[in-house]
This record gives sequence, C-alpha cells and structure tokens, in this order.
Amino acid sequence: MTQDHKPWGGRFSEATDAFVETFTASVSFDRRLYHYDIQGSIAHANMLGTVGIITADECSSILAGLAQIHKEIDDDQFNWRLSLEDVHMNVESRLVELVGDIGKKLHTGRSRNDQVATDIRLFLRAEVDELLNQTTALKEALLDLAEQNAEVIMPGFTHLQAAQPITFGHHLMAWFEMLKRDTERLADCRKRINVLPLGSAALAGTTFPIDRNQVVKELGFANASENSLDSVSDRDFIIEFCATASIMMMHFSRWSEELVLWMSEPFAFIDLPDRFCTGSSIMPQKKNPDVPELIRGKTGRVFGDLTSTLTLMKGQPLAYNKDNQEDKEPLFDAVDTLRDSLTALIGLIPAIEANTKNMYNAATRGFATATDLADYLVRSGVPFRDAHEIVGRTVAYAIEQNKQLDELSLEELTAFHQGIGEDVFAVLTLDGSVAARNHIGGTAPDQVRAAIARARSALGS
Amino acid sequence: MTQDHKPWGGRFSEATDAFVETFTASVSFDRRLYHYDIQGSIAHANMLGTVGIITADECSSILAGLAQIHKEIDDDQFNWRLSLEDVHMNVESRLVELVGDIGKKLHTGRSRNDQVATDIRLFLRAEVDELLNQTTALKEALLDLAEQNAEVIMPGFTHLQAAQPITFGHHLMAWFEMLKRDTERLADCRKRINVLPLGSAALAGTTFPIDRNQVVKELGFANASENSLDSVSDRDFIIEFCATASIMMMHFSRWSEELVLWMSEPFAFIDLPDRFCTGSSIMPQKKNPDVPELIRGKTGRVFGDLTSTLTLMKGQPLAYNKDNQEDKEPLFDAVDTLRDSLTALIGLIPAIEANTKNMYNAATRGFATATDLADYLVRSGVPFRDAHEIVGRTVAYAIEQNKQLDELSLEELTAFHQGIGEDVFAVLTLDGSVAARNHIGGTAPDQVRAAIARARSALGS
Amino acid sequence: MTQDHKPWGGRFSEATDAFVETFTASVSFDRRLYHYDIQGSIAHANMLGTVGIITADECSSILAGLAQIHKEIDDDQFNWRLSLEDVHMNVESRLVELVGDIGKKLHTGRSRNDQVATDIRLFLRAEVDELLNQTTALKEALLDLAEQNAEVIMPGFTHLQAAQPITFGHHLMAWFEMLKRDTERLADCRKRINVLPLGSAALAGTTFPIDRNQVVKELGFANASENSLDSVSDRDFIIEFCATASIMMMHFSRWSEELVLWMSEPFAFIDLPDRFCTGSSIMPQKKNPDVPELIRGKTGRVFGDLTSTLTLMKGQPLAYNKDNQEDKEPLFDAVDTLRDSLTALIGLIPAIEANTKNMYNAATRGFATATDLADYLVRSGVPFRDAHEIVGRTVAYAIEQNKQLDELSLEELTAFHQGIGEDVFAVLTLDGSVAARNHIGGTAPDQVRAAIARARSALGS
Amino acid sequence: MTQDHKPWGGRFSEATDAFVETFTASVSFDRRLYHYDIQGSIAHANMLGTVGIITADECSSILAGLAQIHKEIDDDQFNWRLSLEDVHMNVESRLVELVGDIGKKLHTGRSRNDQVATDIRLFLRAEVDELLNQTTALKEALLDLAEQNAEVIMPGFTHLQAAQPITFGHHLMAWFEMLKRDTERLADCRKRINVLPLGSAALAGTTFPIDRNQVVKELGFANASENSLDSVSDRDFIIEFCATASIMMMHFSRWSEELVLWMSEPFAFIDLPDRFCTGSSIMPQKKNPDVPELIRGKTGRVFGDLTSTLTLMKGQPLAYNKDNQEDKEPLFDAVDTLRDSLTALIGLIPAIEANTKNMYNAATRGFATATDLADYLVRSGVPFRDAHEIVGRTVAYAIEQNKQLDELSLEELTAFHQGIGEDVFAVLTLDGSVAARNHIGGTAPDQVRAAIARARSALGS
Repeated sequence: MTQDHKPWGGRFSEATDAFVETFTASVSFDRRLYHYDIQGSIAHANMLGTVGIITADECSSILAGLAQIHKEIDDDQFNWRLSLEDVHMNVESRLVELVGDIGKKLHTGRSRNDQVATDIRLFLRAEVDELLNQTTALKEALLDLAEQNAEVIMPGFTHLQAAQPITFGHHLMAWFEMLKRDTERLADCRKRINVLPLGSAALAGTTFPIDRNQVVKELGFANASENSLDSVSDRDFIIEFCATASIMMMHFSRWSEELVLWMSEPFAFIDLPDRFCTGSSIMPQKKNPDVPELIRGKTGRVFGDLTSTLTLMKGQPLAYNKDNQEDKEPLFDAVDTLRDSLTALIGLIPAIEANTKNMYNAATRGFATATDLADYLVRSGVPFRDAHEIVGRTVAYAIEQNKQLDELSLEELTAFHQGIGEDVFAVLTLDGSVAARNHIGGTAPDQVRAAIARARSALGS
Repeated sequence: MTQDHKPWGGRFSEATDAFVETFTASVSFDRRLYHYDIQGSIAHANMLGTVGIITADECSSILAGLAQIHKEIDDDQFNWRLSLEDVHMNVESRLVELVGDIGKKLHTGRSRNDQVATDIRLFLRAEVDELLNQTTALKEALLDLAEQNAEVIMPGFTHLQAAQPITFGHHLMAWFEMLKRDTERLADCRKRINVLPLGSAALAGTTFPIDRNQVVKELGFANASENSLDSVSDRDFIIEFCATASIMMMHFSRWSEELVLWMSEPFAFIDLPDRFCTGSSIMPQKKNPDVPELIRGKTGRVFGDLTSTLTLMKGQPLAYNKDNQEDKEPLFDAVDTLRDSLTALIGLIPAIEANTKNMYNAATRGFATATDLADYLVRSGVPFRDAHEIVGRTVAYAIEQNKQLDELSLEELTAFHQGIGEDVFAVLTLDGSVAARNHIGGTAPDQVRAAIARARSALGS
Repeated sequence: MTQDHKPWGGRFSEATDAFVETFTASVSFDRRLYHYDIQGSIAHANMLGTVGIITADECSSILAGLAQIHKEIDDDQFNWRLSLEDVHMNVESRLVELVGDIGKKLHTGRSRNDQVATDIRLFLRAEVDELLNQTTALKEALLDLAEQNAEVIMPGFTHLQAAQPITFGHHLMAWFEMLKRDTERLADCRKRINVLPLGSAALAGTTFPIDRNQVVKELGFANASENSLDSVSDRDFIIEFCATASIMMMHFSRWSEELVLWMSEPFAFIDLPDRFCTGSSIMPQKKNPDVPELIRGKTGRVFGDLTSTLTLMKGQPLAYNKDNQEDKEPLFDAVDTLRDSLTALIGLIPAIEANTKNMYNAATRGFATATDLADYLVRSGVPFRDAHEIVGRTVAYAIEQNKQLDELSLEELTAFHQGIGEDVFAVLTLDGSVAARNHIGGTAPDQVRAAIARARSALGS
Repeated sequence: MTQDHKPWGGRFSEATDAFVETFTASVSFDRRLYHYDIQGSIAHANMLGTVGIITADECSSILAGLAQIHKEIDDDQFNWRLSLEDVHMNVESRLVELVGDIGKKLHTGRSRNDQVATDIRLFLRAEVDELLNQTTALKEALLDLAEQNAEVIMPGFTHLQAAQPITFGHHLMAWFEMLKRDTERLADCRKRINVLPLGSAALAGTTFPIDRNQVVKELGFANASENSLDSVSDRDFIIEFCATASIMMMHFSRWSEELVLWMSEPFAFIDLPDRFCTGSSIMPQKKNPDVPELIRGKTGRVFGDLTSTLTLMKGQPLAYNKDNQEDKEPLFDAVDTLRDSLTALIGLIPAIEANTKNMYNAATRGFATATDLADYLVRSGVPFRDAHEIVGRTVAYAIEQNKQLDELSLEELTAFHQGIGEDVFAVLTLDGSVAARNHIGGTAPDQVRAAIARARSALGS
C-alpha cells in the first residue's frame, strides 16, 4: 500500500475526484480523536494477540508502532494526509510504514464503523468526566458565595416585579439546584456512553474468534453492546449529551441574564472586577459584563448542535450511512462550549461582589411584604382569598398615597381591616418576612444554611 | 368573590382588556390538568388540616367540594370560565360556590406558581408510567417478531448498499436495543419529575407551618424540592422529557423509513395488511404505508416541541415569569404524539409479513460475502489490508463478468490469489456467512436467539 | 358510495384498523380549510364546465351543492366524519349526497395532492394579507408614540450599560425598522405562496384537457406552477412563512424584553394601564406585565413550528408522502400566534406611558456623555484613540470621586487634557449630546422627526 | 498605545483575566473578515477626508497603511494578536505601528458596533453573489440532464409506491423548480443585506459631520440604514440567510435521498462514476454514494445554524450586546456548507448515468396506469368516483391473478365494466400515459422540453 493509496481502492477503476476527496474527508476534524483511536487499537491488538489471530511478536510490533505514532502526533511531527480520509486510515497507513505488513493485520475483525463509534465513546467519556469535575468546582463556588450571603436580603422577583423579600444566598442556592440536576443528567448520560461497540465490525459482527469482554475490560467499559447493527449506527449518546448540555447552557443563560441585570446601573445589585469585563472602542466610560453576555449568547450554539444531531439521525435507515460523519463537529462544539462556559463561571462566581445596600433598598420598595400582611390576616381568622382582596385594596391606597406598606399608620391600616394590630409592623419588616419562611426549601437564613450544609455533605466537601 | 371576579382584583382599578383576557388565559388547555390539580389540592387540604391551619371540619368540607367538582368535570357538567384564567382558579371559584368561605382558605400557604408546577409533575409522571407500559408492549412485539425471523436472511445495508448478509431477527433486535435505551432514558427522566414543588408558594416559601413531607407521602413523590425559587421556575423536566421523546421519535422515524423502503416495490421485503394502509383519491391501485410515513412525519413536531421549550426558558431571570405558561402545550403535544406513535407501532409490528424469498434473493446480489472472502484469505495468512485489496479486484472482475462471487470458478478465483481452495465456496454462502458471526452482538441465529432470551429475561416475560 | 365508504376502497379487502383510522385522519384540524377547499372546488368545477369535461348543468348542480355545504359548515350544521379522513372527502361525500352522481365528477382531473396544496396556499395568502394589515396598524401605533416622544431623553444601552443618551422616539423607531423588514419579508414570501398547484393531479398532471390559466384567474393567483411533481410536494412556502414569523416573533420578544425591563421597579421607565396587566393569586400587590412576557414566551413555539416543518421535509423523496399531513398544524399555530401577538401589540403600544423623568435621570448617570467628551478632544486635534484613552482615565477618576462627568470642575478636567475649555460643559449635557447626532439614522430629535415623516409618507398615512 | 494595550484600557485598573481574554476574543474566527474590514475602513477614511475630519495627507497615509496591512495578511505575514480581541483592533493597531498617530484618527465617528455590522454585510453580499453564480451553474447542469432524459420513462412515486409513469426529465425539472425558488429567496435576502450600517457609531450616531451617502456609493450599498440603534443590533439578514440556506439544504437532502435510493441495488435506476464514490475499510465490494449521503447529513448543521442564530437574538434588549459575537461562526458555517454542497452537486449532476432500462421496467410494475384506466372510463361517461372504485376492484383482481393491468384480457376487463373496448390497451401503455399528460406542468415529453426551453430563456443560456 503506497502512502496515499485508498484503503478500499481494489474495486475502483478511477481516482476520486479532487473536490470529492476534500469534501468527504474528515481528518481535518477527527484527528482530534487520535489518542482514543490509538487507545482502542492497542486494546484491539492485545485482544487479537490473546485469542491467537496475530502472534505475540506481531502484537508487540503493532503496539510499538502505535506508541511511536502517538508520540509523533503529540509532538506535532505527524504528516496528516487528507487523501487518507480520516484519523483511522492515517494512523493505520503510518503503522504499515513503521512496522511493515504486520501493520496490515491490525484491522482484522473490525471496521471503521465500529472503530469510530468506539473512539467517540472513549473521547466523550473522558470529556464528561472532566465536565463532572468542573461541575463540582462550580458547585463549591456557589456554596461559598451562598454561605457568605445567607442573610443578605434582596427582592425576589416574579415577572421582574418585586414579589417577596428573599436572601441572596437563597437565590444562589436556586442556581445550585439547577446545577445539581445537570450533574445527575450528565451522570445518567455517561451510563449510555460507557458501552463498547468494537467487535460489531461493519454491521454484522466478524467471523474471527474475537473476545469482546477482554476489550471491555481493557478500555474500562461497563459492557459490550448487544447488537452489531445498532452499535455502528447508534448516536443516541451524542444527542443525549447535546440535550444535557443544552439544558446546562440554558441554566447558565438564566444566571447570565441575572448577572447582566444586576450589573446594570438601575439595579446595581452586584459588581464584577475589571478583569472579568471589557470596554468599548468608542465609549470611554464603558465596563461591560462580557463574560455573562457571551455565555448567554453561546447558549444558541449548543441548541444548534442539538438540532443538528437530531436532524442528522432522523429517517436514516440502518446501519451506517455517510451522514454520520457529521456527528463529530457539533459534538466537539457542544463539549468545548460547555467546558469553556464552566471555566468562565468557576472563575467568575467567586468574584461577584454583592452591593448589599442596594439589594436591601430595592427590597423595601414594591410592597414586597404584602403577602405577609395577608398571611397576618389569615392567622387572625380571615379566609386567605378575602385577606388577599383586603391587602390588594390596601396596596392600591398606598400607591395613591405614595407610601410603602410599613409607612401607613395603624389607623390607615385598620381602615381596611379592623383586626390589624400594632404587631403588624413586625410582620412588615424584611427581616421578619424572610425569617418566617422557615421550612425546607424556604428562604429563611436558617434554611439556606441547612441547605448549604446538606449540599456540602453530599459533595463530601 | 363573585364568579368572575379576578382572584387578584383588589389592587386593580380597571377591568382587564377583553382581548388580553383571552390572550393571557390558559384554561382552554390547562383544564386538561384538572385531575391532578384536584389531587394536589386534596393533599394540600389534608396537610392544612393535619397541622391545624384549617380545622378537621373545614378540611372535610373542602374535600367534599373537591370531590363534587371532580365529578362535575368528569361528567362534563362543569362551567369553565375563561375570565377565571386557568384551571386552578376555576376549581377554587367553584369550590367557594359549593362550600362558601371555607373554600377561600384552601389557597393558604400556596400559590399558583407551586400549584401548577405540582400539577404538571403529577400529570407527566402518570403519562410516563403509561408510556413505560407501552414500551414494554412494544418490546414484546419486537421480540416475538425477531424470534420468528431469527434465521431469515436478508441483506444488511450500509450506505443503502448491500454490505453483508444478516438475519431479519438481528435487524429487529437492533430496533429493540434502541427502544431499550429509550426506556432507560424515560426512567431516568422520571426521577427528576418525581419531586414535590408544593410548599414553595410564590417563590420564597410560606409563613405558615406547613408539613411538606406529609404532602410528599400522600402524592407519592420521592422528596420535596430543596429551593423554593428554583421549584417555581424549574421546567427542566419538561425539556428533558421532550428530548427523550425526540430521541424516541427519531428512532421510530428510522424504523418507519425502513418500513417504507421495505414496502416499496423494488425492495418488496415486507407486506403490511390492508388495515394499516390507505389508498389514493385518484390512483385506484395505491396501497400506501401511511402509518410509518405519518410517524416519520410526526418526528418533526416533537423536535419542534423540544426547540420550543428550550427557547422558552433561555435567558429567563428567576423566578416565575408569565412566559412559562407556554410550557404546557408543547409538553401535551409531545406526550400525545409519543403515545399515539407507540400505540400505532404496537399494532403494526406484529402485522409485518416478511417476504423471506425476496429478502434472501436480494442478499445474493451485491457481493455481500466479499468480506467473508477477505476473512478467508486472512485465515490463510494474508494480512487483512492485502486481502481486502485482492477481493476488491476480484469484485471488479466479477462486475465485468456480470457474475456474483460464488458464480466465479475456482480457476477465476485463484487468478487473484493462489491460496484459494475448494472450501471457499462454503464461505461464500449466505448461511455460512451469517452463522460465522457468532459472538455477542453478532448476526448468527444462535446469537440472535440468545439476545432474545436475555431480553425476555430482563423483561420478566 | 355510502357515506363512510373510503373513497379509495375498491382495491382493499379489509377495513381500516380503528386506531389507524383515527391516527391517519386529518379532518380534526384540516376542516379549518373548508372555505378555501370549497373556493378551489368552485374554480375547478367552473373550469371543468368551460372545457366541456362536465356540462353546464352539471356544473350548476355542483356549484349549488358546494354553496349549500359552505352554508352548512358556516352554520355548524355539517356532520364531519372522521372515517372520511379529511376536509376534501367530507365535502365531496356530502356533495354526492346532495346532488347525486354528478358530484362524483368533481374530482375529475385532480387529486387530493394538488387540492390540499391549493387549499393551503389560498388559506395562507388570505392570512398573510390580514397580517400585512396588522403590521400597518402596528407601524402607525409606533409612529404616533415615537412622535410624542421624539424629544424625550433616555439612556441608550449597550450591554445593558448606559452608553449614550438617545431619545425614546429614536428607540421606538428602531422597533419600527424591524417591523419594516418583517413586512418586506412577508410580502416576498407572499409571492411564492401565490402560485396555483391545481392541475398537477396526483403528481404527473392529468389526461383531461384542463385549462389551468382559467383557474389561475378565478382564484387570483399570479401563475400556474411549472412542474406537477414539484407542486404536490413543495412546502417551501410554509417553511418560509414560519421563518418569517420566527424573525417577527424574535423582534417582538426583544421589544417585550425591554417592556418588561422598563416596567421593572429599578428602571420604572414606563407604566402600562391595569387593563394590560394581571395580578397574583398569592401576592396582593402584584401588577405583572403579562402581555409582553407571554409574547416573549410564545416566541419559542414559532421557532418550534419552524423546526418542525424543516424537519418534516428533510430527506423526503418525491413526490407526495403522508408525512406532509403534518404541515398544517405548525402552520396554523404560527399564523395564530403571530396574529394574536400583533393584536396584543396593536392594543398595547398606544397605551405605553413614558415616565420621562425617570428616563432622563437614568441618562444622567453612567457617564453617558463620555463619548461626547472624546469627540470634543478630537475636534481640538487629539487623535481619536488618544482622546478615548484620556477620557477613560477621566471616568476612572470620576468614579473614585463619586461624581458624574459634568460634576467635575474645569480644573479637574484640564488635569487630564490641557485643551479642555469652559465650552466643554455644553458638550456634556444630555440635550447637547442628543442634538449633535444629527445625520440620517442619528438620534437627534430632528432626525427622528424626519424619519417619522419618511415612514408616514411610505405608509401613505 | 503599545501593541497589546487594550483600545479601551483607560478606565480599567486591572488587566483582563487570562482565560477571559481568550474566551471573549473573536480574532480566531473574525479575521476571516479582514478584506471587508479594510474595504470598509478605506471607504470610511475617504469619507473622513472628503468632509474634512482628516486632511488629504492623513487620508493618503491611512490608505497606504491599510493597503500594506491587506498585503501582509494576504501573504500570511501578519502577526495576529489575541490580546487585541478582534480583526478590527488588530488592523487598527498595526495601522498605528505603520503610520503613527494618524492611524489613531481612523476610528473617528465610528464604533466597532457599526464597523462589524458593515464587515459582515460586505462579506455576506459577496458570498451570496458567488452562491447565485453557483445556482446558475447547477441549474444549467440540471437542464442539460433533463433534456437528455426528456423521454426516459420511470415510475413516479407517491408514498414510495409506484403512482404513475413520469419521465426522468420531468423529475429533474422538479428539482430545477426547487432551485429556482431558492434563487429567488437568495436574491430577496440580498436586498436586506445590502444596506449600510456604518455611521451608526456605537448606537446613536456620531457628532462628526459624516457623509453616509458617500460611503454608500463607494461600497456599493443600496442605501444607508435609517436608525442607528437598529443598525448596530440588527442581525435579521443573518437569520434570513440561514433560513434560506436551510431550505436549500432541505432540497439538496431530498435530491440526495433520491440519489441514494436510485443507487441502491433494488432500484438500480442510476449509476455514479467511481470518482464520486468511496469504499469501505472492511468490505471490499462496496461502492458507496458518499457525496449525496454527506450532503443529506450536512442538512442538519445548517438547520442547527438557523436554530443557533434565532436563539441568539431572542429576547436581547437593544442595542448591541456581547451575545452578538456569536453570530459569525454559524453564518460562516452555513455559507461554507452551502457553497461546498453546491460545488459537489455541480460536479455530480452531469455525471449521473440513468439506467433507462431498469427505470422503464420498474414503471411497468405497480399498476402505474390504473389512473389512466379510470380516466378512460370517465371519458366513456362514468363519474370519476365510480371509475376509481371500478379500477380499484380490477387491480385487486389483477393482484390475485399476479398480472399487471395490461396483461388482463379484454374479457377480464369488461367483467368490471362493460364499456371497456380494445382501445383501452393503448391507454395502458407507459408511453401513452406519459404523453397524455400534456398541459403546463404535466409530464409529457413535449411539456418537459417546453419547460426546459422556458428555463433556458429565463437564464439567458
């Protein structure tokens, strides 16, 4: 086999069209898989040796050649050839250069169809493990910041209207909960990644006496796939990963939306250090929260990766079709975007500086304790729906008077309901309101601290 | 409260605009949740009674009222009012009609925000359980058909070109594997559905001494949510369901693509009974495989539901925003589409009639045993890559001669490699080829039957 | 033909499966097309009469029957039958009931394939015309509001940070420009809707001597389609409409995002009348901007409709496949969502009350005139990039001093650049800043008014 | 300004975080715009010179510097710096190195916000023009192939079931019609690309006396944008392009689906030369239609780009936000994918070899002339719906007899309807069937040739 001879050229009578060669080649992006491709080949060679399809000496030669190739690629000394189509044939072709005809035996009992499926699974498993490490770091950052702010009062919003006072720590723990679910989804997805397709060959298995369980063990998979047709055509795990990544990015876009809002001058709830912001080419005063804006913007690309991979698989007959070559770039993009966004957030979260005074002041506006007043009336025997109505009218009156609820006199308040007493003013304070929501999931500082403690315990940190 | 008085009207000085009332109301679609809304209210009332927020008598009255309302709706005797916005307020308003002021106490310590989240989770959990039942039925149908066809030979395709002979049973077991992963994903998704948001109230929890664990137990949830802000704004479980449903529909679209192909006259691999087909308004001869076509077409709508829900949540600040009202219709659509597609397939699969002769004949064309010939050469010592090259040239020669491989004479074959002997013809048979792929995941009938047996054992069937 | 006899039943030996009948029927949603279905049938009948395929009397009978059916449906007196599959066969079957065997001649020379394509085009053309009317009304509302606010100063934001002062009128005219492009896209899309498929029959045309141009004229199409295969399978116009609608909804979601922000207490730039807001079931003080939130939320469903229709068509071989039945529901949904959102905005925009004082005050913060200071330096000979640097340092100093730029003394300013003179303070005013951007597209009130005048002239209003 | 000094550094007190610098930089991908960035800067400099903001000498220096930079980049001699964030600041910084302080004047009266919008529009306009050229080439290829095959008979399919005989030329002209609409959409999209944003500066316009119309003329735009806020935030044209590209790719995926089907052995309607196919690493006989499969697969990525850009813009407040940096990569990807797919098809289409005998034989099966028989009955006075029923029963009988329609004897035929005469057999031939569909849009060879002639005339070819 000459260097650029197509590995399947025997049946063909004319050379590949030059544009077609470029158009159909994947080596420009799948070379990224080289480590996993070689790792899989090592396990395959070892297995071929064990069952006697190749000799121990042949196996040794192949392993030495593969090690050499790995080093050449690591050192950027490898001559990638587009004409050899993909990472697999580039590696195999170099192997034959290095070890001669023995190298031509490596592909016994396998196909690129099961080989690439194995490569992607090894790659994605490693990436998911790293992403899981990052989620742990991000969780810890959130817990630290939440703990510092367990008693810091801010307005809780619904409809971006002040709803009820909450603590900033409680708000951050809402973010934590999102991330906790993301982590669970990633771990569930990992189970379905961690299955060995190798041994499925082109689509039907192989006539050689392979031992798939040996390969399972060497590569650390949970088990071998159960159906060869399915194995070479299954890309569920890529779509599931993209869906999981999309939900994570959606969460990060929500956090980012809030960070951008809170950095905006009318809110001014937080500040970010200069090192996380950039300026403007024209407006000298600008300090822009680029990092959260960019994360919010990157959400779309991961949604796009998900759309792309779902569309890709829709309606494909079994087993492998060339369409599937298009699975890798969206996957790589989703992995990279998620990893970078996590890295950015792991740096950014601890740097958030809460402007606690602005937060508190904002909570004093907007009648945030109106529900507390209604609850007060309920405790005195008014049915909730009536209490709601009474307080609604009270708020309408206060707006007219341009006062907050706790600025109304007892006389003004009793005009709306006679049962209101002096003790109502304790209920109308922010601290009282927050402290009173003291059950699991509630915003009371004690509950926030308890939630942090439970979370730390679960993290083992 | 008059019937159509807005439950939040106290603070407002003008009536809602008539179009806005229609535009913002959700009762036209969320009334579908009534059973779960009432189920949640019963549990809430019971808890309010247990902790003493309402008396035992009040609780009884409320329960009686709710039972009456459930019956009225079941019997289509309920007067749904658009002006009351949603299912929650329609039910509550009717309750007050039925039991008087006591009914106004039901909303104590909760909000529509946590109420609707609870309703959707109860609804979706029930639907997922039913979908899981359907997947079991569909799996059994696949196993039965696979078992009948464990030895039926057909061409396995890659690139829609004949690749290697496989068995139809093996092909059907590839479908089974897809469905097995779908089931796992549904079960994983269910874990994240099965969490109680009630008690989160508007966003911060409540000042009343509620017992969330009692509600958890009564409604059969695994646990209460840990953060009230997150609980009222979390729609992850809807998106995750839509993603899971999208992958399932993608699988069904692949099966459908194959069914349509196999029904097409040039393939003619299968037939479907008349009762699963429809005709044409103009062409009297037509018998169209409408059911698989329609399933393939419905794939897009579930992808659309996923896009819709992901887009919905992107960039929303905490906690609840009105945007979220748009979560229900795509969810309902995904649930209904998936359920109907499953129902259709559960009926269709057992009715598939394999045209085994056509399948077999097709496998004899296309040089499907070329890999077997290469493997044969490898066993005689030729490195695989060289064997591939030799067989490639042999195939090119056979095409010229307009012969299949097993129609070449030994003389013709040995012209390509001297080591080929009379025993090669056994290798070139379809039955020999299939039987030789005899390892886990391989297409040999023994392996197919073993896979079926493992699957039946796992299903407990 | 008995009432429920399938119109294609001749070739079939068993009845359609009951579930399959429901699953494959479209009458539950395509009945919405009845007006256009009958309109198309009238034109077809007239043409059959003109060319002599049916007699004048037969034509009259058919027209009378169709008129009767239209009235029955209008009056909700029509008995829709699921077993007759779709709107087309329900109408035809009733026609045969009404006029006897003559009715069986109506389908001569056509198929449901070209009939449904014609129906949808007639439907969508009418809907687009109505949407275009709505965009005109919305444009006029924007122009009126922009005119009232042509001199109202507010901060212009980039990155949600105050960037430069602008006028509210200028901001509203940015919305106008978006809508102008939307209108152009709708009109371009309409060109591709307005083509007649009828005459394509099943896929190949018909053997009858039809006159397609007569039908073109009667139905007001621009021309007849040029290829029968393409005509029955083309759904581009649906996708293009969904894409156009998606961009419109994206615009409305941006407007809505701003309305929600501006309604939020920290901004308080605008107020909306009570009639456009709703309250909370638990929090008596809430007045929520539900309408813009809901529009923002509805964006996702139109994106979903686009995803759905693109996915639907992907990879379908020619010509018609049953998949295409799934084209209607996403189209209807996109049309309805867009129309309702336009209706809501046409009502809402004129009701926006600008809190001009809050807008102005916000513009005084955030160093919004820093660019003006840099421009001032440039006019005195400093290269822009140096001027930017100097002002950047000045802003850093002002932040330290907790002052705005116009609160710095001339002495403080000249410390950063000696060339600054007393005239700088005119440059640092908001009114001066705004007035100075006086070129086409700029924010100066004169430019805003000129833009409004050009727009009114183009609208002919 | 030192080389890597941030152009906005004046106001900042700490250096950008190292990861943030990488995360937020765009130069790795926006450098692709350098030609258009420099083109825009030249026009801007010329305008600054004309209106006297810079002197003629300064203008000359800047132009010389920009020319030098263009050459450096062309020659790959340019030192791109990530720390300078983007293409704009890399060019400007190098300009200052080359021409000194004069270079710092280039950014007068503009911002990166309007600069990048101008760059992308110049880029995309050029790409669209090239794509339009490609569509012309592809149209011509289709017309040539259609002309060669104007009389070649094949089965037309609906539901992938033989429906009626058509000509292969007619089928190819259906593809032509799709492409014709694509071209119209591209041209419509180009109108909305071809608008100049420059002069909008950051968001509000500029205080300098710029002449936007001069820039419009120099850069060949149709007009200047009418609102500065809108101009810097508008990305509609990107989304519209992605939508247009998505529909094109959807078309190409349909063509590809058919090419793959037709290449499949059971169909064997066409062959593709070896140079457009590739083989298998394991199966020596394989010749795979990789090019159409890959085009079909690439459809998903363009759908993904559309999802990505729609999501990106959803809910962004005005004016520019950093999110928008994410607009370029999906656009580049859509442009590249579309261009490569067009290139592939322009090469592939002329190389298609029709297996006319297989096509003809396939058309003889499947009762493709059943409609002709029904039409025959109609002409003898039978109402169409009854004729359909009669022929349906005839087909059912023929299936039982395992005969095609034209293999039935006249006696057998008249058993179903007495009016059938000897002349029926002419109607049942493929050639007769095809020739009879002789109206605009019909499949008769005369009509196909007429359609080709009209198309050539419109193309001017």
